Amino acid sequence: MSHQRLTLVRRPTGLPANEDFALETVADAAPSDGEVAIEITHLSIDPAMRVWMSEARSYWPPVGLGEVMRAQAIGTITASNADGFRKGDVVSGMLGAQNRFVGSTNGLQKLDVSRVPATWYLHALGATGMTAYFGLHDIGKLKAGDTLVVSAAAGAVGSIVCQLGREHGARVIGIAGGPDKCAFVKNDLKCDGVIDYRAGPIGPALSELAPKGVDVYFDNVGGEVLDAVLARLKRHARIVLCGGISQYNATGRALGPANYLSLIAARASMQGFVVIDYFERYKEFAVAIGGMIAAGKIIAREDIVDGLGNFPAALRRLYQSQNFGKQLVKV
Amino acid sequence: MSHQRLTLVRRPTGLPANEDFALETVADAAPSDGEVAIEITHLSIDPAMRVWMSEARSYWPPVGLGEVMRAQAIGTITASNADGFRKGDVVSGMLGAQNRFVGSTNGLQKLDVSRVPATWYLHALGATGMTAYFGLHDIGKLKAGDTLVVSAAAGAVGSIVCQLGREHGARVIGIAGGPDKCAFVKNDLKCDGVIDYRAGPIGPALSELAPKGVDVYFDNVGGEVLDAVLARLKRHARIVLCGGISQYNATGRALGPANYLSLIAARASMQGFVVIDYFERYKEFAVAIGGMIAAGKIIAREDIVDGLGNFPAALRRLYQSQNFGKQLVKV
Repeated sequence: MSHQRLTLVRRPTGLPANEDFALETVADAAPSDGEVAIEITHLSIDPAMRVWMSEARSYWPPVGLGEVMRAQAIGTITASNADGFRKGDVVSGMLGAQNRFVGSTNGLQKLDVSRVPATWYLHALGATGMTAYFGLHDIGKLKAGDTLVVSAAAGAVGSIVCQLGREHGARVIGIAGGPDKCAFVKNDLKCDGVIDYRAGPIGPALSELAPKGVDVYFDNVGGEVLDAVLARLKRHARIVLCGGISQYNATGRALGPANYLSLIAARASMQGFVVIDYFERYKEFAVAIGGMIAAGKIIAREDIVDGLGNFPAALRRLYQSQNFGKQLVKV
Repeated sequence: MSHQRLTLVRRPTGLPANEDFALETVADAAPSDGEVAIEITHLSIDPAMRVWMSEARSYWPPVGLGEVMRAQAIGTITASNADGFRKGDVVSGMLGAQNRFVGSTNGLQKLDVSRVPATWYLHALGATGMTAYFGLHDIGKLKAGDTLVVSAAAGAVGSIVCQLGREHGARVIGIAGGPDKCAFVKNDLKCDGVIDYRAGPIGPALSELAPKGVDVYFDNVGGEVLDAVLARLKRHARIVLCGGISQYNATGRALGPANYLSLIAARASMQGFVVIDYFERYKEFAVAIGGMIAAGKIIAREDIVDGLGNFPAALRRLYQSQNFGKQLVKV
């Protein structure tokens, strides 16, 4: 028996290309002592992947050339030689871009799929949801009544941030691209305001929706959106630096926020964080988001691309803002 | 009797020009009830002045056209109709760019000049010293053993930051321009390391002096120096955003920090502050810096330009990094 895996064979220049990867067919190995075999069903496509593919300094080492592309995934255990894991268990973990994983149970999470689809553990109940939750509360220190601005509001992290923000009593303004996503942000995520960044300049629209300025900005995109918000900060504002997807594929000098000196007059801060630091606080997060899910208050939209060979295309969908909801690959 | 004053008559484009100001001779007024008359001796020249001269949003409204240029100053009271102030008292306050001030005592500070020259209250014992102290401790949260990097290290705020940093047990690396200033930073301020930003690229020099990265960066300049430090942050690093003098006279789009996304992987923060928020905590500051002054541990170098008419030239000295020590104008 054999399975397929996707290895990184070249570091991308600009957008990831099909040729940056090789799809290999390899013979299945059996799990050794302490190991499990997993049939992978879905891969999570995340903005940080472009960083992992580069040689840039980051919170994890780059994916090595010839190595299986790093990816969070879910699947079902097909064979187990490890305590506490049984055939049939649904699990999540850093299983890589392949349709079969064999290895240790280190970092594996068993999933309760009795109440939510398994894929939600790659979205609202996974690192995506944790990123939203800890970014908003630990870094953003969101208070009821705050004006919260969220970029990539129709995206995976952004959509959860919007919903958590409203639940916390903030006035939430979502920024998204195009009428469909904006309608989703307004009608489904129930944001107080929405800005279509493709429809015109962001600054004036933001001034209208947040005439007194912005308390918390959850930034997933960087670039012009970040600059527009920087120019409209309230005193003691907090910018949660989650990502900068507009800059990840830059081939020249990245576009730094020209208005960063506004942080001085506003006595404001811009702080970065990485969700892996919060994995040990999963329970706290699960209680909060679990309550909202049970109350039917969480919408977790998915955008599923079929087939491991379409992994590079799914990545490009993400970086070109074509995805609508959490980008997944079904393998 | 008459006195001279300098009014702002045009908003500068790029570097402030002589023609942006008018030197006027006006008749002296006598102080009314609750007012004093002050013979001004020295004006403080501060980087933020360029911001006050523009229409940019800041922590104070712009100086209006036709108004006396805003300036911190010291002087001696020549006549008083106010309780608690007597002829002969030496005071500091926002007295403006003129050689005589008549007005209320609001915000006036009486100075003890028995142990230090009066001009020190425009420097180590004034807003300059407070900026260094509260920026380093409240925003930078400097700890003993931290690697602290200071830009414009031979300048007014920078030189005090270096000295406070060493006193607090940090390893201090100062960045300055040219051999004279660098010798001052190394030999007089006794920094552990110094980088001449004019002598070559900053990045490699910083990597050599701070191989494990930077814990606290006290930024007065922005631009390439900020980018070089951003690429070398230790985990949980703090960037104290005090100023960005390299960008204040930019006529096009300011140069944003292209490496700002390094804040994510480093879980680092960049925070702005304005010293006026700390004026009420003067005592705490005075005790700390007073102790160091008494112990002979503070060097407060001055760079004095003579004559109110040379105020615009003094401003340009500052923005062109020609000053060596705190820039003052003797009027």
